[in-house]
Amino acid sequence: MSTLLETIRDPADLRGMSLPQLEQLAGEIRDVLCGLIACRSAHFASNLGVVELAIALHQAFDFKRDRLIWDTGHQIYPHKLLTGRHAEFQSMRTKGGLMGYPNPAESDYDLFMTGHAGASVSTALGLASGDDFLRPQENRHTVAVIGDGAFPSGVVFEALNNGRRQSKKLLVILNDNRMSICPPVGSVSDYLDRLRMNPAYTGLKGEIVKMLNRVPLLGDPAERFLVQLKEAAKAGLSGGMMFEDMGFRYIGPIDGHNIGLLRKYFKMVQRIDGPVLLHVVTEKGHGFLPAAADPVTYHAPPQFERQQDKYVIAKKGVSAPAYTNIASQAIFDQMLANPKVTVLTAAMCQGNKLEKVREEFPERFFDTGICEAHTVAFAAGQAKVGMRPIVDIYSTFLQRAYDHIFQEVALQNLPVTFMMDRGGLAGPDGPTHHGVFDFGYMRVFPNMVLMAPGDAADLPAMLDFALKFDGPCGIRYPKASAVAIARESKSIELGRSETLRSGLDGVIVVCGALAQRALEASDRLRDEGLDVGVINARFLKPLDTEAIVGAIRDLPWVVTMEEASLMGGFGSAVLEAAADFGVDASRVRRLGIPDLYIEHGERDELLADLGMDVRGIVATCQRLAAGLPASQ
Amino acid sequence: MSTLLETIRDPADLRGMSLPQLEQLAGEIRDVLCGLIACRSAHFASNLGVVELAIALHQAFDFKRDRLIWDTGHQIYPHKLLTGRHAEFQSMRTKGGLMGYPNPAESDYDLFMTGHAGASVSTALGLASGDDFLRPQENRHTVAVIGDGAFPSGVVFEALNNGRRQSKKLLVILNDNRMSICPPVGSVSDYLDRLRMNPAYTGLKGEIVKMLNRVPLLGDPAERFLVQLKEAAKAGLSGGMMFEDMGFRYIGPIDGHNIGLLRKYFKMVQRIDGPVLLHVVTEKGHGFLPAAADPVTYHAPPQFERQQDKYVIAKKGVSAPAYTNIASQAIFDQMLANPKVTVLTAAMCQGNKLEKVREEFPERFFDTGICEAHTVAFAAGQAKVGMRPIVDIYSTFLQRAYDHIFQEVALQNLPVTFMMDRGGLAGPDGPTHHGVFDFGYMRVFPNMVLMAPGDAADLPAMLDFALKFDGPCGIRYPKASAVAIARESKSIELGRSETLRSGLDGVIVVCGALAQRALEASDRLRDEGLDVGVINARFLKPLDTEAIVGAIRDLPWVVTMEEASLMGGFGSAVLEAAADFGVDASRVRRLGIPDLYIEHGERDELLADLGMDVRGIVATCQRLAAGLPASQ
Repeated sequence: MSTLLETIRDPADLRGMSLPQLEQLAGEIRDVLCGLIACRSAHFASNLGVVELAIALHQAFDFKRDRLIWDTGHQIYPHKLLTGRHAEFQSMRTKGGLMGYPNPAESDYDLFMTGHAGASVSTALGLASGDDFLRPQENRHTVAVIGDGAFPSGVVFEALNNGRRQSKKLLVILNDNRMSICPPVGSVSDYLDRLRMNPAYTGLKGEIVKMLNRVPLLGDPAERFLVQLKEAAKAGLSGGMMFEDMGFRYIGPIDGHNIGLLRKYFKMVQRIDGPVLLHVVTEKGHGFLPAAADPVTYHAPPQFERQQDKYVIAKKGVSAPAYTNIASQAIFDQMLANPKVTVLTAAMCQGNKLEKVREEFPERFFDTGICEAHTVAFAAGQAKVGMRPIVDIYSTFLQRAYDHIFQEVALQNLPVTFMMDRGGLAGPDGPTHHGVFDFGYMRVFPNMVLMAPGDAADLPAMLDFALKFDGPCGIRYPKASAVAIARESKSIELGRSETLRSGLDGVIVVCGALAQRALEASDRLRDEGLDVGVINARFLKPLDTEAIVGAIRDLPWVVTMEEASLMGGFGSAVLEAAADFGVDASRVRRLGIPDLYIEHGERDELLADLGMDVRGIVATCQRLAAGLPASQ
Repeated sequence: MSTLLETIRDPADLRGMSLPQLEQLAGEIRDVLCGLIACRSAHFASNLGVVELAIALHQAFDFKRDRLIWDTGHQIYPHKLLTGRHAEFQSMRTKGGLMGYPNPAESDYDLFMTGHAGASVSTALGLASGDDFLRPQENRHTVAVIGDGAFPSGVVFEALNNGRRQSKKLLVILNDNRMSICPPVGSVSDYLDRLRMNPAYTGLKGEIVKMLNRVPLLGDPAERFLVQLKEAAKAGLSGGMMFEDMGFRYIGPIDGHNIGLLRKYFKMVQRIDGPVLLHVVTEKGHGFLPAAADPVTYHAPPQFERQQDKYVIAKKGVSAPAYTNIASQAIFDQMLANPKVTVLTAAMCQGNKLEKVREEFPERFFDTGICEAHTVAFAAGQAKVGMRPIVDIYSTFLQRAYDHIFQEVALQNLPVTFMMDRGGLAGPDGPTHHGVFDFGYMRVFPNMVLMAPGDAADLPAMLDFALKFDGPCGIRYPKASAVAIARESKSIELGRSETLRSGLDGVIVVCGALAQRALEASDRLRDEGLDVGVINARFLKPLDTEAIVGAIRDLPWVVTMEEASLMGGFGSAVLEAAADFGVDASRVRRLGIPDLYIEHGERDELLADLGMDVRGIVATCQRLAAGLPASQ
């Protein structure tokens, strides 16, 4: 019944609409969002919060020529609905369908494929700068929309610090919904709280300005300063001194659900040269009561189901626990046993399932906000004086702390443990979230020990190992359910792999949670008369060269398998070891992520495409057993 | 004649000294610093600037128990002189001697080996947090000293944002010398300028406070707000609202060359609970007129020589130009030819030799300050709208922008060119500055093209290639002089290597500037009757698999050579290619940086230790030719 929404082929179609029509449209968009969540898990509350903002932006600007960046990008859904993607909307986050983030391949209205937070102000400055050089007469506007959750990212501060050189149009919209993915933390959040209390927002402003004008101006020598003071006080009235100090004109806060008001402010801002920060207050989950009441749960809720007249979050059937759950339980157990253990998360308390840890050990739980760089350096400080910090960050977001993993942790050889969640293919979130580069980017650092559990039982044992080890360790596991492989599991020893099954025809050496698949492939191959072993590598670094190079030397062929980029990854480490021992590795076939960005889709679908489902693994082994080339 | 300095075995010896003695000591330290620069190049002006600060800190605190972090670390010299390292001071920056940065292996007074900017506030927060857990009764102080140049790094903002949770003693000293390595840029710098103008610093304060108290307080409804306003105005008098807004008590600015004043403030600050930011104004180069007058040149000047009665910077003899100079000239030429080319540096205008570019093309030259993350994301924005940005950053500092190389550049396939200076062993700067991980960390990203010039002629040709190529490119070169290899150089073609010399007995495949050494080794081997070829790989990615895998297949043995970490580097890429083609690579020997942090020393010394001098290369080839194992 989305009658208005269906008529919108392009944002230009918004321009003839009346305010009541736009408000009707907002309601229709919310209906579509609810309808999507009735089909599958997706980002939800943040999208409900920006419906009016997206409508007002597309009505006030022309983003065929003006530039629009949605920071982080998971709040892109209303924008997609308004830019010609309504018909395909139900394909959201499915393989081959719409991406849950901006995607330039879908639409020219999406400029950058994003998913990580904080870079929008920098890219917007770059866009504006480029337009100033190339199209100085066209006076294009550049707009970045950034949430208060992303705002404390260091790169935002760096961008603000560099904003003053931008003399032309630049609008940064601070979308302040008083939420990161988790409740907000830190001083910037406090500061925004104070801004929201200011008289301009609460209505006192006129009276105050009158009073200020009654403050007398005295003569020299301090007159100049007192004038400055009055100006400062007036700026204080409009709030945002911090932003003004950074060279941005601060305007706001204003109500981000009032389309008419937003339009008015956008028109005003369009006449201002130089960088402007417009503070817009929205409600995460606006228009859907349960989401507004609990925006954490409704950030990216599981699929809804309709019960009688209302939507409720679908109860999942019983399945194997996810690695994330096992990790959080293992962290909990370690914190219970050892008062020196702390845990740090960067706004991912929910994603990392750390709620129970936060509740039980509030003093040793640190949510730093989306500040990964600080998180790692802070952990290094704790480790230096004798604590045992666990840094629990998604593999892809850990990239944001790269230099601090190097300088503050690995170079100092400090015992910081990295729990690298979402290692591998992150499924429907797609290329910005797949954690496939970590094997390559982490193992270059001397001192770093890197592990990947082969099953559910390995993970707590590895954490236990890491917390007793005197140096930095990373433990990397996927967004997937975890089975326990039936075997008499040996304890974790530095650099030792575990032979899950011996075989004389060949061996599959797995680094990580695909071990179970390798065993299933081995079962099938046995049915066909092939005796194929499986090694659970456990350690990416140091590598178990004895077992693995031994297998290459002694067996007809070896398959290495990893849910990571083949460039510099586990298979590559195996080849290095073989060459160092002078062993011929021409019959080693490496399975893993090729040198491509992998699209979004269900993890199993994507792995199958890459030959890492059981069928694919079997086929690779059969080729090798038949003497066909191991080459790719 | 350093009589006082010689008596100091430990900072405790400072405590009995009178103010005149401490001032004499400051003079002695400056003499030692000048004496060092008479021997060799070292960091200079920044050390001259913190002499009094270091003395006052060590007198007011006891860093046997309290914690001290010097951010960035190149201003550590006075601290080293005061902590028992006077006798070894002349060994500074020589192999086996003192490191030019904090080094925990030298002294317990050095907590973190640093060299990259900005993490001190985070690590200090971590140290304080750990001490609060483990030694809550001891009431230890934690101090971080950070320069105004490092201050705009995003990680500092992230740390400030997380500072309010720290309830106990924490002192951040903002060492404001109005200088980054280059002149300061950005809004934070402007803000500090304004703070320095404030009445507390200029002496007007008393009068202003009197006047403020005459400002009438009016009745409701706005009284509450006006009271707030007066408080804000008073806070404005002491300045630093931005820091107060971030939850830090702001004190200052005060004169950082007045030991008595510094001591007084330190004593006061020691009584304050919670995080304090003390703003100290110092002069970079203080006490040595030429350095104070030109702190850029004197940041890390070449060795002095004595002429008559004064020191002057030694004129270098004529030698081959450094890669850095060739790069800056190539950038200049490209900017001259193409108005779409911009260049971005992160406070390294001098280090990257971009002064001429800045002068000639001020509008297309961007010094972003020590804000590498912003720099890369900003470049991506420019590239998106049609510019051709060149990001000119040292290899080791580019790590700080890792996530933006991924998300904003490589994932979008945008034509940003990275000039990766100081790739390889950075010599006397040591482990924090060696740029040895870049091969491994950059090549994991799909779309990324990576080149390393084999000689002086390759570099401009590669830049020309990169600026015509429709995607991201990195060009990586060392801190070394560049010779031009005599040959008819072929133009740069994507993924094509260059055979510099054919040989039937074996081949050395070099990725980067060590090609000349390989040729010299080949010459010597020829004298011994061995016919060893040399391939200039040019491309790390995409690799010239045809030529290189062909050589592995066809020749008795292959040596790969790179001034980069062997973990996941060029040799590893070669092994991957061989395995992918099913070629036996057991006779491939990889030369490069092993899995260790390499100490400081002259680049040639360090390369020799790693078997990458001509002698070492010859020896490796001889071993292989003799049929000895290729293994390491």
